[in-house]
Amino acid sequence: MRCFTFFDRVSRAFRDHGSNFKLLLLCTTLSGGGVLAYGEAIGASEAAVPEKKKVVVLGTGWAGTSFLKNLNNPRYEVHVVSPRNYFAFTPLLPSVTCGTVEARSIVEPVRNIFRKKTVDIQFSEAECLKIDSANRKVYCRSNISNNEKEEFVVDYDYLIIAVGANVNTFNTPGVTENCHFLKEVEDAQKIRRTVIDCFERASLPSVSEEEKKRILHFAIVGGGPTGVEFAASLHDFVTEDLVNLYPGIKDLVKITLLEAGDHILSMFDKRITTFAEDKFRRDGIDVKTGSMVVKVSDKEISTKEMKNGGEITTIPYGMAVWSTGIGTRPFIKDFMSQIGQTNRRAIATDEWLRVESTSNVYALGDCATINQRKVMEDIAAIFKKADKDNSGTLTVKEFQEVLDDICERYPQVGLYLKSKQMHDLADLLKESKGDVEKESIELNIEELKTALSKVDSQMKFLPATAQVASQQGTYLAQCFNRMEECEKNPEGPIRFRGEGRHRFKPFRYKHLGQFAPLGGEQTAAQLPGDWVSIGHSSQWLWYSVYARYKQVSWRTRALVVSDWTRRFIFGRDSSQI
Amino acid sequence: MRCFTFFDRVSRAFRDHGSNFKLLLLCTTLSGGGVLAYGEAIGASEAAVPEKKKVVVLGTGWAGTSFLKNLNNPRYEVHVVSPRNYFAFTPLLPSVTCGTVEARSIVEPVRNIFRKKTVDIQFSEAECLKIDSANRKVYCRSNISNNEKEEFVVDYDYLIIAVGANVNTFNTPGVTENCHFLKEVEDAQKIRRTVIDCFERASLPSVSEEEKKRILHFAIVGGGPTGVEFAASLHDFVTEDLVNLYPGIKDLVKITLLEAGDHILSMFDKRITTFAEDKFRRDGIDVKTGSMVVKVSDKEISTKEMKNGGEITTIPYGMAVWSTGIGTRPFIKDFMSQIGQTNRRAIATDEWLRVESTSNVYALGDCATINQRKVMEDIAAIFKKADKDNSGTLTVKEFQEVLDDICERYPQVGLYLKSKQMHDLADLLKESKGDVEKESIELNIEELKTALSKVDSQMKFLPATAQVASQQGTYLAQCFNRMEECEKNPEGPIRFRGEGRHRFKPFRYKHLGQFAPLGGEQTAAQLPGDWVSIGHSSQWLWYSVYARYKQVSWRTRALVVSDWTRRFIFGRDSSQI
Repeated sequence: MRCFTFFDRVSRAFRDHGSNFKLLLLCTTLSGGGVLAYGEAIGASEAAVPEKKKVVVLGTGWAGTSFLKNLNNPRYEVHVVSPRNYFAFTPLLPSVTCGTVEARSIVEPVRNIFRKKTVDIQFSEAECLKIDSANRKVYCRSNISNNEKEEFVVDYDYLIIAVGANVNTFNTPGVTENCHFLKEVEDAQKIRRTVIDCFERASLPSVSEEEKKRILHFAIVGGGPTGVEFAASLHDFVTEDLVNLYPGIKDLVKITLLEAGDHILSMFDKRITTFAEDKFRRDGIDVKTGSMVVKVSDKEISTKEMKNGGEITTIPYGMAVWSTGIGTRPFIKDFMSQIGQTNRRAIATDEWLRVESTSNVYALGDCATINQRKVMEDIAAIFKKADKDNSGTLTVKEFQEVLDDICERYPQVGLYLKSKQMHDLADLLKESKGDVEKESIELNIEELKTALSKVDSQMKFLPATAQVASQQGTYLAQCFNRMEECEKNPEGPIRFRGEGRHRFKPFRYKHLGQFAPLGGEQTAAQLPGDWVSIGHSSQWLWYSVYARYKQVSWRTRALVVSDWTRRFIFGRDSSQI
Repeated sequence: MRCFTFFDRVSRAFRDHGSNFKLLLLCTTLSGGGVLAYGEAIGASEAAVPEKKKVVVLGTGWAGTSFLKNLNNPRYEVHVVSPRNYFAFTPLLPSVTCGTVEARSIVEPVRNIFRKKTVDIQFSEAECLKIDSANRKVYCRSNISNNEKEEFVVDYDYLIIAVGANVNTFNTPGVTENCHFLKEVEDAQKIRRTVIDCFERASLPSVSEEEKKRILHFAIVGGGPTGVEFAASLHDFVTEDLVNLYPGIKDLVKITLLEAGDHILSMFDKRITTFAEDKFRRDGIDVKTGSMVVKVSDKEISTKEMKNGGEITTIPYGMAVWSTGIGTRPFIKDFMSQIGQTNRRAIATDEWLRVESTSNVYALGDCATINQRKVMEDIAAIFKKADKDNSGTLTVKEFQEVLDDICERYPQVGLYLKSKQMHDLADLLKESKGDVEKESIELNIEELKTALSKVDSQMKFLPATAQVASQQGTYLAQCFNRMEECEKNPEGPIRFRGEGRHRFKPFRYKHLGQFAPLGGEQTAAQLPGDWVSIGHSSQWLWYSVYARYKQVSWRTRALVVSDWTRRFIFGRDSSQI
C-alpha cells in the first residue's frame, strides 16, 4: 500500500497521456534539433477469438521490432525470444562509441513497445539454441549471467526468424581475440572505454615515447559506412574534446582506416567516395586502400598490400575495430541444413519472406535473402497462362492482360523497362519483332524468350541494412494482420505455375536513401534517384530523417536530441565508465 | 589539419565562455529543477617560482577533488594518482541503481577539473601499491585492463592520502562472492543490470512459482542512509515503472531490509527513524531489525535473530546488496604499520590533518580520523602558559587571555560550555569555586583540573561522510595555498607545549545537515541545530542543496536536472545495458 504523491500523479498522468500533450511539452523542453515526430497509431480491434495461432518471433532488432510494432490482429498469441530485452537504434552506434549520444538514448525496452498493444505478446530474454522445424519447436536458453542457465522449449504455428547476422572474421587469425566489433550496444560502450583507456595508458609516466605512439594508434578495418563513420567520430572526439584534456600527447594520435578494396564507401556514388577520401586526408586520417588484414596480434596488425604486389606489412596499434563482414549465427546454419539450404550465407526466402521449402517459417532482416524468381524459369508457364485461346501465339492484347501481374511478380521486368526508357512491355516485344504495328504483334514462345532474355539481369539483391529489415517487418505484420481476409480474397499476382492468385502482393523494397556521416558536421547522402548531397545540409537532413523513423519512440527521440544538446554545450565526457 | 565549421566554432565559443552565458542558456534549456548554481572562481596567481614542491595526491574522491579544486598556489607541482579518472558525486549513487539518474551524469573527469587551473597538475590512472614514507616514494600500478600492468614510482615532498575506504564484510562467509556493494559507480550500474536480470529471469516460462518468488526477493543488508535510500529507490522503481512492464509477476516482488541494530537510520533523530520505519511498513518493505547476517550462499542468506535469542534463520533471495561496514585498503594498513599505527581502522592525524608521527604526509576523508587532543593531556602545559606571572595560581584575567586559543585548540571546551549553557569559561571556573565573585577567582592546577575534568567527554569523532571529506579537502588546500605566508605569520592557536603559535587554525567541521531520501518524493532531513524536516519540502531542499555543492560542475548539475526531467516524463529505462 502506498499513497501516491502529487508528483507521482502528475508524472503518471503525463506518461499515460496522448501524443499531443507530449509534443507540446517536448517542444517546450527541448531546444533545437528540429525534430519532426509523430505518434504511433495503435490499431486496436477488440473482438477476442477463441483459438489463437501461436507466433514465435526470434530477435528484437529492426525486423523483429518493426513486425511487433505493426502487428495488431488479436487472433495471434505472440512469444518473442531475444537475448536483448531492448531494441537498439543501430545507425547511432558509431555516435555511442565516442559519447556524442549515450547508449541508453538509443535503446527502447521491447516490453514498452508492446505494453499498450491489444495483441497478446509475451517476452523471454533468451537465446535460441535450435529450431526443430519438423516438430514446430524452438529450443531456448536464458543468457542471464548466472550459474544455472534456464532452458525451455516453445511451440509455434508460425515462426519468424529475425535474428540478424553476426560478425564475419573470414577466419583471420587473432581477430576475435584482439579486435573490437561494432554490432551491439555493449560493443560501442566497450570501444568508448577502450579509447579513454588508451589515452590514460599513454599518459602514464613510465611509458616510452614509441610505446605512446603505438597505444594512440587507432586502426579501423573496413571502409564501409560503419567503419567510416566510426573513424570520423573518433577524429571529432579527439580533436574537439580529448586534445584539451590530454595536451601532452595529442600530437601522437593517429587514426588509420584499412580497406581491402580500391576505395572506401564503395557502395556509394563515386562523388561521395572521392569527397570522403579527400576529407579524411585533410583531417589527417590515414586511408589505406588495397590493404587486406591477414593477421592481428595483441600489438600488431599484419596486412597484405595489394598495391605492392601482396607484400606483408606490419603496423603496431593500440586499439583495433573490425567493422567488415556479415556472418551467420550457428543455430541458423543448423536450421538451414535441416531444410536443405547448405553453403549459403543467409536463409533463402521467397518474395513473400517465407523460407523456401517450409510453409510456416518466415525469415527477414540480415539473416535472410529473398530469392527473386527469374522470369526465364517461369517463361513457359507465363506463356501458357497469357495465351488464353491456346493459339500458340501471344497477341499484345493477351499480353497486356497479364502485364500488371508479371510486373508485380517479377519486379526486374519493370526495372528493365525503366533502364531501357520504355513505358510499356509492348515496346519490348516490338523491339524483338522489328517495325511491325504494335497492335498486330504476335509472338510464339521462342520469340517471347528472346524478348525477355535480358530482363533477369536487372535482379537486385537487397543490402543488409536497417531500412530493408524495417520495411520487411512492417510488410510481414501487414500480411499477418490480414491473413484470413486475404485467404478469402487474395490480392497478389496470378500464380503462373498454379491456380488462382497469391494471397499477398510480394514484398517490395522502397529505397529512401543512405547516409554516411563523415565527421565535423558533414554528412554524405545518397538519395533515391541517385541524387547526391554532401555537407551540413545533409547532416540536418539525417537528423530529421532519423527523427521520423517509426521505430524510434518519443522517449528515444527526446533523449537523442537532449544528448546532442548536452554535447553541444559541454562536449563529450571522458570519464572511464 | 581540419577546417572548423560554424557549428564547431559556436560550440567551442560556448564551452570556453563564462558562466553568465551558460546560466542564461541553461535556464532556457532546462525546465524545472529549481537549480541554484554558481560558477567556480578560479584563483589565479601568475608568477612562476623556480623550485616547485612536489605534492602527490592519492585519490579523486570527495577529499582529493575538493583539495585539487581549491589549490591555487602555482608553487606546487601536483601529481594525482587514482584508479578512476573521474570524480563521482556519491550521494546520488542509490539513484543510479534504479536509473533515476544516469551514471554519467554524476561523474566529472578529473582532467576537466584541473584543466583551467594555473597549478601544474599531472594525472595518472593507477592504483597505489605501497607508500615508502622513509624515502618519500609512492609505488603505483596502472589498473587499465590489459595484459601488461605498467608500474611506476613517484617521489613527493608532500603526500596527501585521500583514498577513501573499502567495504568491510566483517569476514562474513560468502559476502564477497554473492553480494553487491554500493561504493563505486560500477557497483551501481551492476545493481541496475541485476535488478532487470531478476525480473527477466522470473519472466521465463520454465521457472516455477516458488523460484520466481526467490528471484524477486531483494535483500539489503544494513539500515544506514545508503541501504535505506537504495531500498526506497528500488521500491519506487518497482511500483512506478516495472509493474507496468512485468504485470504477471509484480505481486511476487519483495524487498527486505536487514539491520543488526534495533532501528534503521540510527544516526538520525528518533523522529526520522520512526517515520522511516512506518513509511517502509506502509510501502510493504520488510524491515527486519536485530537481524545479523552470518552467512550468504548463492541463494540464501542466514541471519542470527537477536529478538529470538540468537536463532539462525535462512531466507532465500534473488539479489543481495551489502551496504554496511567501512574497511581499510591493504596498502593503507601497510603504511599504518610502517608509522607504528597498528590495530586501527583509519589513519590517525592531528587536528591539522597531518598524519601523526610524520612531517609531510596528510590524510583526509574516509581513510583518516582526527585524533583530537584531550585537554587533560595538556592541562599542565596550559596552566603553565596561562600563568604568566608564575604565581602558581590562575586569575580569571590571566585565563581569559588564553581563552580563545584554548577554545580553538580544544573545540570540546566550547561544546561543553554550550551544553552547560555557559557563555564564558569564567562561569565554569566559578562553578568549581562556589559563589565567589567572578573577578576574584583564583585557581591552582588541581582546581583547574577539576573545573575542566568533564570537558573531554564532549569530544566527537567525525562521521565518514562526503561532507567531512569535502570540507577537509578545502581546508587543506587553503593551508597549502598560504603555506609560506603562515610560516612567517602563524595564525593558529598558541602552542601550549611548545613555543610560538601553530601555523594554521585547526580543521573545524561545519555540519550542514544530513538527508535520507525515503522514496515517493519524501526525504527526511536532519539539519544543524537538530532541526528535523520530513516530507516533500525536504526533497526539494535536498535538490537545491545538491545543486549548491561546489564539487558539482555546471555540466553535472545540468545533466542531473535533465535526468530528473527525463524520468518525470518517460519513467525509468528497463533496458538491460
